[in-house]
Amino acid sequence: MEKHQVQVELQPIGLRIKVPAGTSVLEAAHLAGAELVALCGGKGVCGTCRVRLLSGELSPASDTEKDELAAEDLKAGVRLACEALLLGDARLEIPRESLTTPQRLQLEGQELPTVMDPVIRLHDVRLKPPDLDDLGSDFTRLGTAVPGGNARASLDVLSTISENLRRNGWHVSVALRGDEIVAIIPPGTKPYGLAVDVGTTKLAAYLVNLENGSTVAKSGAMNPQIAFGEDIISRIEYTNRNSNGARSLQTRLVDALNTLLEELCQQVHASTEQVMEAVIVGNTAMHHLLAGLPVRQLGESPYVAAVSEPLDFLASELDLHLSPGAHVYLPPNIAGYVGADHVSMLIGSRLQEAAVTTLALDIGTNTEISLFHEGKHWSCSCASGPAFEGAHIGDGMRAAPGAIERVRIEGTQIQVHTINEQAACGICGSGILDAVAEFRRVGLLDERGAFRGVHPNLIEEGGEVCFLLVDASDQEDGRRVRVSRKDINEIQLAKGAIRTGIEILLSEAGIQADQIEQFIVAGAFGTYLDVGSAIRIGMFPDIPLKRFRQVGNAAGEGARQLLVSNRLRAEAVQMSKRVMYVELARHAQFMKTYVKALAL
Amino acid sequence: MEKHQVQVELQPIGLRIKVPAGTSVLEAAHLAGAELVALCGGKGVCGTCRVRLLSGELSPASDTEKDELAAEDLKAGVRLACEALLLGDARLEIPRESLTTPQRLQLEGQELPTVMDPVIRLHDVRLKPPDLDDLGSDFTRLGTAVPGGNARASLDVLSTISENLRRNGWHVSVALRGDEIVAIIPPGTKPYGLAVDVGTTKLAAYLVNLENGSTVAKSGAMNPQIAFGEDIISRIEYTNRNSNGARSLQTRLVDALNTLLEELCQQVHASTEQVMEAVIVGNTAMHHLLAGLPVRQLGESPYVAAVSEPLDFLASELDLHLSPGAHVYLPPNIAGYVGADHVSMLIGSRLQEAAVTTLALDIGTNTEISLFHEGKHWSCSCASGPAFEGAHIGDGMRAAPGAIERVRIEGTQIQVHTINEQAACGICGSGILDAVAEFRRVGLLDERGAFRGVHPNLIEEGGEVCFLLVDASDQEDGRRVRVSRKDINEIQLAKGAIRTGIEILLSEAGIQADQIEQFIVAGAFGTYLDVGSAIRIGMFPDIPLKRFRQVGNAAGEGARQLLVSNRLRAEAVQMSKRVMYVELARHAQFMKTYVKALAL
Repeated sequence: MEKHQVQVELQPIGLRIKVPAGTSVLEAAHLAGAELVALCGGKGVCGTCRVRLLSGELSPASDTEKDELAAEDLKAGVRLACEALLLGDARLEIPRESLTTPQRLQLEGQELPTVMDPVIRLHDVRLKPPDLDDLGSDFTRLGTAVPGGNARASLDVLSTISENLRRNGWHVSVALRGDEIVAIIPPGTKPYGLAVDVGTTKLAAYLVNLENGSTVAKSGAMNPQIAFGEDIISRIEYTNRNSNGARSLQTRLVDALNTLLEELCQQVHASTEQVMEAVIVGNTAMHHLLAGLPVRQLGESPYVAAVSEPLDFLASELDLHLSPGAHVYLPPNIAGYVGADHVSMLIGSRLQEAAVTTLALDIGTNTEISLFHEGKHWSCSCASGPAFEGAHIGDGMRAAPGAIERVRIEGTQIQVHTINEQAACGICGSGILDAVAEFRRVGLLDERGAFRGVHPNLIEEGGEVCFLLVDASDQEDGRRVRVSRKDINEIQLAKGAIRTGIEILLSEAGIQADQIEQFIVAGAFGTYLDVGSAIRIGMFPDIPLKRFRQVGNAAGEGARQLLVSNRLRAEAVQMSKRVMYVELARHAQFMKTYVKALAL
Repeated sequence: MEKHQVQVELQPIGLRIKVPAGTSVLEAAHLAGAELVALCGGKGVCGTCRVRLLSGELSPASDTEKDELAAEDLKAGVRLACEALLLGDARLEIPRESLTTPQRLQLEGQELPTVMDPVIRLHDVRLKPPDLDDLGSDFTRLGTAVPGGNARASLDVLSTISENLRRNGWHVSVALRGDEIVAIIPPGTKPYGLAVDVGTTKLAAYLVNLENGSTVAKSGAMNPQIAFGEDIISRIEYTNRNSNGARSLQTRLVDALNTLLEELCQQVHASTEQVMEAVIVGNTAMHHLLAGLPVRQLGESPYVAAVSEPLDFLASELDLHLSPGAHVYLPPNIAGYVGADHVSMLIGSRLQEAAVTTLALDIGTNTEISLFHEGKHWSCSCASGPAFEGAHIGDGMRAAPGAIERVRIEGTQIQVHTINEQAACGICGSGILDAVAEFRRVGLLDERGAFRGVHPNLIEEGGEVCFLLVDASDQEDGRRVRVSRKDINEIQLAKGAIRTGIEILLSEAGIQADQIEQFIVAGAFGTYLDVGSAIRIGMFPDIPLKRFRQVGNAAGEGARQLLVSNRLRAEAVQMSKRVMYVELARHAQFMKTYVKALAL
């Protein structure tokens, strides 16, 4: 009797595969192309191949697992991939430490010259110790010695003052933030800041020298909230269903940020106590979940933010392990679905000063788009869906090693390029975009997204036509990677939404696409996509390639700039107040434009 | 063979007694006069007579105790008084709930007319709900609707905003503190404030209606830090020795404050969420320990405060369970040993406006004294010691039921009055003060403090002369209460220190005692002492009785006033800056004045 097939989904890399029931998780992961650590080769003795069951059914924990894993880990769903057998459909999380090669994270951005307008300034202070003739309190002594002569400080800083002054012989360096003392440190200690871009999927963190604004260390990680739902809506629903769900999401994220901070500090042999300021950007949901703000109303029409103003609070309030007096600054949001990350991206790209007509977008599950024209600024958000993250695509996956990211078709020759040049195990956003553009270019696809014509790779499987990009037999360890009509429709929906947003902003401004002088594409997918392909399938308007700039993680770059510039913080607030937010769903031209934009 | 005697000390009431080794704690407590609860009559079945071993030796826990008490309680030293036997000297804490009659706490003060200059103002706000034409964030909507139009709020308040607005149908009452929203409540909800006087020994707490400043509920409790040391210095030493000692002291105090707050709220059927502001006053050490500020330097010459400026922080930072956005205000200190409680007492008595020459003091282990003369203000602190709290006095105790508080001697007739008119079990500060004054008046004491003359109650015990105030045989359940020469010397040291402080301030101002037009005596002991007796033994200068005012807990009254008046807060700061602090120890006339002041 043939065993029934079960579907396994591996998070956070987003790989899916069908395997016979009874297959071990380790085997399934390898079949799917995920490079799981298994130092002992799957003998159940090394305990390295840990995974966590998110949902679904596995065999009961074996004796080996009971030996190797702590009781609380087992209770939390942790298993050894080599021992756990798949009994039914299952979703599993592969912790970062169990992957041999990390997912590609977008850390790089174009680093613009830093506009220093320091948020924190250091002052060297020498004090006379108290004696019976001069009995002022320690804080009176210090507070009157710094510029302004009237400093204040948080309880956490005040609690360190007496020991700090005495240990350093009454000669200290004082970090002043406006009139607030945020740190008292030995003279000569370097001050650092933390800039973080909290994406729905990924975290990118930068350690910045606060004296000159330069980035001294970078690190990335997955957003651990992914275990509670891949997209924003499913996380909001999770918090609606679970009374302490929002707290769980917050705690997981803060823990991950603390881990990243430690890594960054280790890279430059600094102490986390030297990190005196943080700027954290994210979409409105990430922003709210981080700050402990309610998200229920973000998930219900009319989808409003709880808070759109910039936030400034003590890092200790979130249990972020910066220096005791450090503040966290969150830039303003524009709307429920145009977040502080978009503001930061615009600021990071200096678009508040844009002298030419500029369109800027950050493509993700939601794509935020801004148009600057003659001193005005319009902004919208469109639901582009997760197809460009590899989700909802049959053989899709995120941009991890082994993902096909480039496709060229010349006659019967199919050229694919995979990330890290590993054997192909799936296709990521830029790969599927390329594939669709190539199908269209070589005439294999009509404008509605239906296959046509004849090609040796155009095959039928399970009653459906699909294009075989990579055959398992072509490569060692590889999988079959196909593109189906359904996959192409997903891409049509995604690119149609983006193009609709662009067109509606253009019509609001009363201009034509060819008046766009500068077209900025930010974010991870935006960096790796082929602009020519994007134009070919109609996602972007057909304007000269030289007007496009792919700027990488401009949100992270904006966060870096905001760390060291009060002026840019003020500009971010001005921008958020001045912007004209366009709600696409209720726009008169929405349906007409969308239907037209779906065509390839 | 006679059993050896062991010394047992019962805290927080401060009773001490010697009993034969092997006596049960319950029996010893009853012999000492402490009214311990023991519902079952000491059969070990009710579990009500709980005590906690602070130091010393008791018999191992009995089976009964192991049954009745939780493991963690046993581990923390909790015992049943009826089962635990005294094997050696021991210090024990009797929890409040194990005492049948509580210690007398000083809650009453003269309530002066309230100078309202509200710190918090309520505003009724009706908002238009968001719709697709008006997508501003909830906070933008609210913040622009309150006076000023530019309000801010803490994360804790922001986290409640969306639900509060929707649950109340977009009609709420907003509590504004300057430009900060500290609470969003249903319209019509009463706003309360909490005023607390944190004494080294006692806590006095008041719930205040923030709209008119009236006190609506009062409650008191012992300061639980007493388990870590009776006086300030021993608590500072405890924190020096134990790395998390300061945190323990802080946590115990905060827990007690939260309990008091709940009691107060229950009295008026209010929720703690209605309590939107707190003013807490205490001496500098209590202030620092509450706020988590370092105290080591308070215990080392030159005894400086870490912070003397007023503090203003979120109640949540201390884990005080007020409303989510509530602030705590701590008034300024004057010096290491002239604390915010003294400032509050002066403000509570309106002395910043004093038109006549005024001396004001608050007697405790440290006595703070202020002199106001011709618009100037001098202040000092003197180490009056714990004798007036009943400590260091052979049969001394705190002002708890059964303590002798009044003594009159007419020939061989000795009249004593005890608190609550219970059988005498010891003598408290006002009683010993009276006794010494009476001995002096009837000629039984010379000015050096030595007994002289003949009296039936003047007896010799253990080679020492003492005066028998109460004989055990005179009363049911009573104890012998005596006053020894050593006791009298303790009183001389205490009153000498206070008189020295008064004299030195007078000499700083260049005036004579009879120029004092108003003499204010604050605090618990100060309320119950007999001013005539205090003059007779030379503690106070000999000025007309009508110039004295015993004002009760003026520090608590000041805290109440500070709750509802920004003007008084500003005046407190001005006072703390203007005051001339006089360090007695280094004053040229100190020794000469002190020696003279010791005489009776």
